[in-house]
This record gives sequence, C-alpha cells and structure tokens, in this order.
Amino acid sequence: MCELLGMNANVPTDIRFSFSGLARRGGGAGPHRDGFGIAFYDGRAARFFHDPEPAAHSEIARFLGAHAIKSLTVIAHIRQANSGAVSLANTHPFTRELWGRVWTYAHNGQLRGVKKIPLNFYAPVGTTDSEHAFCWMLDQLRARFDALPSPARLDREVHRLSAQLARMGVFNMLLSDGRTLYAFCGKKLSCLTRCAPFGKATLIDEDRSVNFAEETGPDDCVTVVATGPLTSDEDWTVIEPGTLLALRDGQIANSVCLKPPTRKGAAKGVLTC
Amino acid sequence: MCELLGMNANVPTDIRFSFSGLARRGGGAGPHRDGFGIAFYDGRAARFFHDPEPAAHSEIARFLGAHAIKSLTVIAHIRQANSGAVSLANTHPFTRELWGRVWTYAHNGQLRGVKKIPLNFYAPVGTTDSEHAFCWMLDQLRARFDALPSPARLDREVHRLSAQLARMGVFNMLLSDGRTLYAFCGKKLSCLTRCAPFGKATLIDEDRSVNFAEETGPDDCVTVVATGPLTSDEDWTVIEPGTLLALRDGQIANSVCLKPPTRKGAAKGVLTC
Repeated sequence: MCELLGMNANVPTDIRFSFSGLARRGGGAGPHRDGFGIAFYDGRAARFFHDPEPAAHSEIARFLGAHAIKSLTVIAHIRQANSGAVSLANTHPFTRELWGRVWTYAHNGQLRGVKKIPLNFYAPVGTTDSEHAFCWMLDQLRARFDALPSPARLDREVHRLSAQLARMGVFNMLLSDGRTLYAFCGKKLSCLTRCAPFGKATLIDEDRSVNFAEETGPDDCVTVVATGPLTSDEDWTVIEPGTLLALRDGQIANSVCLKPPTRKGAAKGVLTC
Repeated sequence: MCELLGMNANVPTDIRFSFSGLARRGGGAGPHRDGFGIAFYDGRAARFFHDPEPAAHSEIARFLGAHAIKSLTVIAHIRQANSGAVSLANTHPFTRELWGRVWTYAHNGQLRGVKKIPLNFYAPVGTTDSEHAFCWMLDQLRARFDALPSPARLDREVHRLSAQLARMGVFNMLLSDGRTLYAFCGKKLSCLTRCAPFGKATLIDEDRSVNFAEETGPDDCVTVVATGPLTSDEDWTVIEPGTLLALRDGQIANSVCLKPPTRKGAAKGVLTC
C-alpha cells in the first residue's frame, strides 16, 4: 500500500515536519520505495515535485526538507507499486486542468477492473489504475457541471464518485482543485486539526518534535490527513470508511458520509461520521 | 522579452551547462527576473520545476545546477513579465495532457487580442496571453485529430497553428509531446546541433566552458534551441522567422517553412529555410 499525506490551512503553512515523517517511510522506515510526489498549491495553480526514487534517498526530498515552500493546500504521496511499473508517469500525485484550475489527486489502494471503464476527455499518461480512476472522476465532473459549482454541490458529487470507485476495491484518496482539499476514506485514513492553543508534537518515524505554539499565530488553523497518524502525542481521528472530508480554511468544512452523521461539530474539526 | 531554451537528444542528456547560462540571465546577467520553469521529459511524462523567484537567486535553480536530471527533451523558460502578473500560475512552461501524453509549451513574445479567441476544452489557469494561445493550439489539435497523428502530419499542423498565432504579434515558441520538440521562430530563435566530433564550448554569460568530447559518446547527438546563442565559440544557426523546427533523436528531423526551402541538409542539422 502507498501512503497519503494532505494538508489544508488558513495561512500559508510549512509542511516539512509532517512530510519528513512521511518521507522516512519512503524506503527508510517503510517499504514505500517506488517513488514519491508532492504538490504545493498557490491559488488555482500548483507546483509539483516528482521523483521515481525512494523518498528516503531522494535528492529532491532532501531539497524539500531543507527549503520551506509554504502553501494553503498540499498533497503528497509515497508509492509502493502494485499496479503499474516504477516510473515517472506512474508517480502520484497526478494532475489535470479543469475549469481553469489545476486539479491534483493521489490514491492509495487498488481498484479491480477500473481500467476497463471507458474515458472521454482525459486519458492516463501512465499505466496505474489510480490515474485511470482520476481521469474518470474528472470526466464525470466535466460532464456534470459547466463550470466550478458551489462547494456544497461539488462536495456531494465528489463523494458520489468516490463511493462508486470504492465499490471496486480500496479507494483512499486525496483530491484538490485549490479551493477544497478532499479526503475520501475507503478503508484507512486519519486526520488531525491543529488550532490554538497549539502544543508539542513528536513524529512516530523519527526522533523529532516541534512546539507549534512557537511556530504559529493565534488564528492559524491547519488540518492534516494521512494514511496513519504521523505523530505519537496528538489526538488523531480515524476517519470512518465511506466518508469524504471537504477541507477549507484549515478545517473540516463539510463531511459527507454514506450514512447520516451521528453527531454535529464539523466546524470545530470534530469528525461527524 | 522572455528567454527560451529547448533541448532534444538521442541519449539522456544533462542540460546543466546550457541552463546555467540561461539562469544567469534570470535576474543576474539579464532582466528576466519574473520567474522561471523547466520541464524534463521521461517518456510520455515530464517532471516540472517552477519558481516565480528570479532564476539567478532561486533555490530551485541552485538545486538544478547541482543535480543532473538527464532527459531526451527539455523545455526551459525565464520570464520577463509583460502580460500577466508575476505568479506561479503565470510561470512557463505550461502543461496539459492530450492523447495520454504530457504536452509542454513555453512562449516568448506578445500576442495582441489572443485572449479574445474563444476556447473549447482547455482553459488557462493564469492570465497570460501565452497560456491562452497554448490552450487554443491544443483545442485545435484535439479537434483535428482523434489520436496522435504521424510525425509529419503533426509537424504540418503545429506549423499551421504557429504561423496563425505569429500573425497576432511575436510568437517564438517551444512545444513538446515527448516525441518531438517543436521550435517555432516568429522573430528570434537560434539553434545548434552537437554531434561527433565534439569540441569545447564556452558560455557567453559566465566564465564557464566544457569539453563535450570528454562528456559524450561517439553516437550522441543533441540539438539546443535558444532565444539567442548561449556559447561564444560554437556555430549557432539563426532560425529564419516563420520556420518550425521538428526535433527528434537530437537532430532537425523536419523543418516546415512559410516559404519553400532554399537548400537541403536538415539531417545534418543545417537549417533548410
């Protein structure tokens, strides 16, 4: 399985602490040695760094560890190949343009038979089931809406498409259009929202901790989504399978579930499914 | 004006020597301080590095100068903004997917009124006339062909579209689908083919030279296209306005002109217009 890392914040935020924990799993502490990629949004555009080399030994990953690229929305992925060879074309996150916005997507899991689904506008460059599913999602969104719909309408449609793909296998996914970071949990995904009062956090994968109270402002808010918790001393929430989180302004703005929410509180970053 | 640099080779080639000459012009030796970008092809995919910072002071440019990313096709651009603010979204090269291939494009010049041309499938993410023209070109190619056509047919169509855009202003352009590197000269573009026997080359913009005989194999062949010559002791060819060069396997495989060729010799890298 691959590992996902997503971040959405209300102020440009440095992801290096979380990313260094993830990168260690890329051939270092973990088996995910088949490449990595990361996208940093800047408005409707994003800059990408891809490397088919293991993240733990990648010069690009080392560069990213040494230089802060602050962003409101970040999607990162480290790969353990199961569908498609190890190559740049198969390295997540994948990207396409839709409605004059850069869309970015990373997937963890396997989707049986998804490559048999015919595509219309978008075509995969690589050979992964993941990229085929991404092209299909964007095809569906393009066919359904003429232009970027309201957040609530897009949230519902992304959930509907994600749930459809999840029926074909394991579909844990991060997706962004630069306005919202979507995180769909098909099987395994956790999240954590950091707002004031900020505290200390210690990485699970390396002996490294940070005191966010010294790094942040009183109004800063950031939500991190990852395949598994990255820190040992913070209260990560395990996302219920079938749930799509829509992250905006650093918090869970909406959470769409396969079954109705059992309790309120999304605005406070509490998972409602 | 911006500056363009393109490279096409028959073996994965390190562009750092030429790129370092270009990067010096990005706020160092030149006025092109409004960002830079570079794309390295790997099959049908490409990896990108973009930075709205001046190339001469960019940490990313420094990283690229320290680490060789060998590629068969490279497109680089340093920007002096004239249409569109300085931002990541307006930083060349631009990219889109068509027929399951990553297309990359960089433009030097200005196109009056191009943004009034309606678009169909592709939409600009930024606000430059350059990106609008790129979206229009891909729209036209998508409408004209169902799948990637033969090199000769695509060469003719890319020339037809380029010549059309050149009538709207200044259109010097680099474009690639990973199979061919296209270089259209609307006003100012030079090229140079390096094959055995290789010799010494000295950069114009900094005190740096390289002996390619020590760096290359006897069968290596690489063609470099740039806004102006990058070296002082090599025989650069000034491309005639209205000419599209189609570079494959490191050489000029085809050259389409607005008027008939006056002499032969494209295979030997001699400009035929």
